[in-house]
Amino acid sequence: MNRSILVLATVAGLAAAFPAAAQFAKPEDAVKYRKGAFTVMAAHFGRVAAMANGRIPFDAKAAAENAEIATMVSKLPFAGFIDGTDKGETRAKPEIWTEQDKFKAAATKMQDAMEKLNVAAKSGNVDTLKAAAGTVGQACKGCHDTYRKE
Amino acid sequence: MNRSILVLATVAGLAAAFPAAAQFAKPEDAVKYRKGAFTVMAAHFGRVAAMANGRIPFDAKAAAENAEIATMVSKLPFAGFIDGTDKGETRAKPEIWTEQDKFKAAATKMQDAMEKLNVAAKSGNVDTLKAAAGTVGQACKGCHDTYRKE
Repeated sequence: MNRSILVLATVAGLAAAFPAAAQFAKPEDAVKYRKGAFTVMAAHFGRVAAMANGRIPFDAKAAAENAEIATMVSKLPFAGFIDGTDKGETRAKPEIWTEQDKFKAAATKMQDAMEKLNVAAKSGNVDTLKAAAGTVGQACKGCHDTYRKE
Repeated sequence: MNRSILVLATVAGLAAAFPAAAQFAKPEDAVKYRKGAFTVMAAHFGRVAAMANGRIPFDAKAAAENAEIATMVSKLPFAGFIDGTDKGETRAKPEIWTEQDKFKAAATKMQDAMEKLNVAAKSGNVDTLKAAAGTVGQACKGCHDTYRKE
């Protein structure tokens, strides 16, 4: 069993585990949590994307490490979109709660794309990485365009 | 190789990987990143601590899942304490940068305690968990008392 498989097994475990694992005392705690998780995910994905786009030099080890963290953290933020968290310090649109199946599908699309990026990053092939990073970026943008206020 | 060992191997990989993996375009990005990571870690550790303290019913599976996530995320925030990030929207005290060895030791103490909590949580024994959660809580408090503004 190589390390990639181990990591994906861990990630899959987290994904399965998460919905039951997250609970928040107050709605604003859930908002703060999901924003924190998105921030961490974006920081690590951003480094991979910058390498994929040639904005920073490609470093196979750094790409693999950052993709791994981004993939794990991608499992977390959606647990924070609980009822009553469409208010306050958030850009979340009300459609998130009126179109829950569609929102969940959009989240899953991003998570699946991130898992593929994680595999691609471990290949050490920058062209493979570029394609995978593009798919993640499209998934991010698709969800933001529909479910996030400007 | 059982799952606990796999997870710890992944976590150790992240810990070794991280300093080189994190880079930020602007100081405020680093501040936002570390706050996000602390928020996510605290949410998951908080659930384990609540079980350890009897505030919520003990659920061995939920304890193990939350401890696992908290342990992984505990590796991340300290990369955000880069030079020039003692200003802005932060409660970080300047001593973080004038006592870097001591601050790093305090961070490591928390990370080590969290790894022990992760092992304890997988034991399914609530007394073991309680002791381990107490040690994590003391490590959190110790660092906050010294390095975080009120």
